[in-house]
Amino acid sequence: MSETLVAETLVQLIVILFAAKLTGMIFSHFKQSKVLGELLAGLLLGPSLLNVLNLHSEPIIFLAELGVIMLLFEVGLESKFDELMKSGFSALMVAIIGVAIPVLLALPYLFSIGLDFNVAFFIGATLTATSVGLTMRVLAEMNKIQSLEGKIILGAAVIDDILGLIVLSILTDMVNTGSIEPFNIAKIIGLSVLFLGIMIVAGKLLEEKIFNLVKKLKVERTFIVMAFVFAISMSYIAAGIGLATIVGAFAAGLVLEREENETPIRKRTHILVELFAPIFFATAGAAVNVFAVITPEIIPMVVILTIIAIVSKVVAGLGAWNTKASKLAVGVGMIPRGEVGLIFASFGLQKGLVGNDIYSALVLVIMITTFLTPPLLQKAMDRIYSASKYFEKQEEDDVAAIQEM
Amino acid sequence: MSETLVAETLVQLIVILFAAKLTGMIFSHFKQSKVLGELLAGLLLGPSLLNVLNLHSEPIIFLAELGVIMLLFEVGLESKFDELMKSGFSALMVAIIGVAIPVLLALPYLFSIGLDFNVAFFIGATLTATSVGLTMRVLAEMNKIQSLEGKIILGAAVIDDILGLIVLSILTDMVNTGSIEPFNIAKIIGLSVLFLGIMIVAGKLLEEKIFNLVKKLKVERTFIVMAFVFAISMSYIAAGIGLATIVGAFAAGLVLEREENETPIRKRTHILVELFAPIFFATAGAAVNVFAVITPEIIPMVVILTIIAIVSKVVAGLGAWNTKASKLAVGVGMIPRGEVGLIFASFGLQKGLVGNDIYSALVLVIMITTFLTPPLLQKAMDRIYSASKYFEKQEEDDVAAIQEM
Repeated sequence: MSETLVAETLVQLIVILFAAKLTGMIFSHFKQSKVLGELLAGLLLGPSLLNVLNLHSEPIIFLAELGVIMLLFEVGLESKFDELMKSGFSALMVAIIGVAIPVLLALPYLFSIGLDFNVAFFIGATLTATSVGLTMRVLAEMNKIQSLEGKIILGAAVIDDILGLIVLSILTDMVNTGSIEPFNIAKIIGLSVLFLGIMIVAGKLLEEKIFNLVKKLKVERTFIVMAFVFAISMSYIAAGIGLATIVGAFAAGLVLEREENETPIRKRTHILVELFAPIFFATAGAAVNVFAVITPEIIPMVVILTIIAIVSKVVAGLGAWNTKASKLAVGVGMIPRGEVGLIFASFGLQKGLVGNDIYSALVLVIMITTFLTPPLLQKAMDRIYSASKYFEKQEEDDVAAIQEM
Repeated sequence: MSETLVAETLVQLIVILFAAKLTGMIFSHFKQSKVLGELLAGLLLGPSLLNVLNLHSEPIIFLAELGVIMLLFEVGLESKFDELMKSGFSALMVAIIGVAIPVLLALPYLFSIGLDFNVAFFIGATLTATSVGLTMRVLAEMNKIQSLEGKIILGAAVIDDILGLIVLSILTDMVNTGSIEPFNIAKIIGLSVLFLGIMIVAGKLLEEKIFNLVKKLKVERTFIVMAFVFAISMSYIAAGIGLATIVGAFAAGLVLEREENETPIRKRTHILVELFAPIFFATAGAAVNVFAVITPEIIPMVVILTIIAIVSKVVAGLGAWNTKASKLAVGVGMIPRGEVGLIFASFGLQKGLVGNDIYSALVLVIMITTFLTPPLLQKAMDRIYSASKYFEKQEEDDVAAIQEM
């Protein structure tokens, strides 16, 4: 790698990080998702407009990959499995309905416009995942994370992530073998459940011991790096046994997940996510070519998929039928696609499952759902909780702390 | 970048980080320099023994480069310019003598074995820099950072770094133009002093305002990433005006340097250093080919350069003539080469100034000086401070905290 190449890569990194963080900060200020801002930054820097990014730079692609790995590692670290179990059955129902309905609604439409099964299944799958981060942030801004709706949404979003990862592993197998075989699906589901199960059990059994040993040996800082090595090792192993890379990162997070909110590992992981995840989102945004979308064929697809994405999750809210929670609020809370959806879309583009037109359409759908959720969720929650003026009541610091999430 | 390539790079990263951190931790446990452990890990993984590293992987090379940038950014952040000024004149004398003598002693020897001026000057320059980190750690372990010797050593080490960076910029120019012109040297010194001067003044003027603005806007986390962007931007600018890349990173650190020990930026930067710097040291170690050194020509060179490296810094201790400090202790404290020396050596290898034999010899010299310093410094300090049993007296936690530095 020549000095010129190092210099060029430094410039790419400077441009990407500066634009992504600045736009993210502005979006955050206006109570919008940071991820949305980062995507938009990429979109503006990409071929749609400024065309200043080199999307083939190996170091940048690798850093983006590290960003996704760290992101899913963090999601795993934050999963709070025990708490998740409490919201239990309702969350599971909401999640399963929320994964099944988008696919079931999307397939007939996609067949009708002439797409074959693999592509249609991929597009449907992209619409299944819920962005935990955004939903949490909106609820936190309304001081409603501890509400019944909040707990169900969070639980369902985590299960959504797991289901999404399994679906992604099925897609990986589909790309590798060219088709979907029932036997393979069963194998992948079995492997995923086994893999995650082993990690969760290992976490329960070893977690305390690991942390005590680290404390005894006084190697906290080395441990952070080792945790990072563990996350990428698990990603590599997951890929090796035929699962999606990020399943491993998520599982690694589950092993080291703790009940406390601010463990040193989480804080440090978060810094890496802050630094690398924007590279992924910006490059994902840069791969969007808006000119590819502004065609008579694709515009209707964006509109119809957006409607499916919203309706399907609102319907999923009915999964909370045996609780007092507002089904509408739960459903609306599940609307934002986001990280996992974007990972799906990037995967499809990289593997050649879809071209730039459909990829761009999918990213736009993800962006629109993410953009619409905060106001919709606020409305839905306002209908049930009389104290409607959350923002005036709460401490400024709370908002700021959350904005920075 | 294909999936296979991503997977291969992940494996490289896992192997490098795991080996480097493990060896670093073991060295740290035996009160040796972590950097030494990381170098050794690379040496073992490299062509000398296991030969499992791909030293041409672009993402890995780039991550190593980021590691060096973050390392020098951290050195800048830790420079405490105001405090440095207090140890002032003595530190400056020690530093200047410590930079001049190694070159003056090395040149005649190197000419005598038939090397030309450029190569000889490069080798001499590699022997000039002192590793602040190691010296600080040893002194901290003895609770002697605040001693007169400690202050002079630290001040001199920082000035050493600055002088070293200027020399590296001169070397950069020498490589680019093929020779050393007095006019160019003057230009580079002028540019460096101007660049660093502007950054220090800008830091003094803007620092408070920047931090207040960040606090007001509540964008602390985004700010960390922006600080990182700032560091790589300055590196890029420094390279653009003909200075060494890392001069920019160091200057960026000076701008954001604060008197407090544990600012959020420093903590976060340190995490990045912990993660990326080992990649640099391990790849630097991997580039060493011990078989290239085990020759009748190179072994004497290693011995003689090591003697020069040690004697020259002990002589430099005399720079503290107008103080009550032990000149021997100050001199011994300046012995460890380290980060900057390694950066020099890597630079020379990359630019083709030296071949693998001389590069390997230089890294061995750096390793030997680093290895010898802790026991020598402890002896020298014991001679002056009657309380000789530091280790038994101090709190275990202190040692642990320092080991993790």
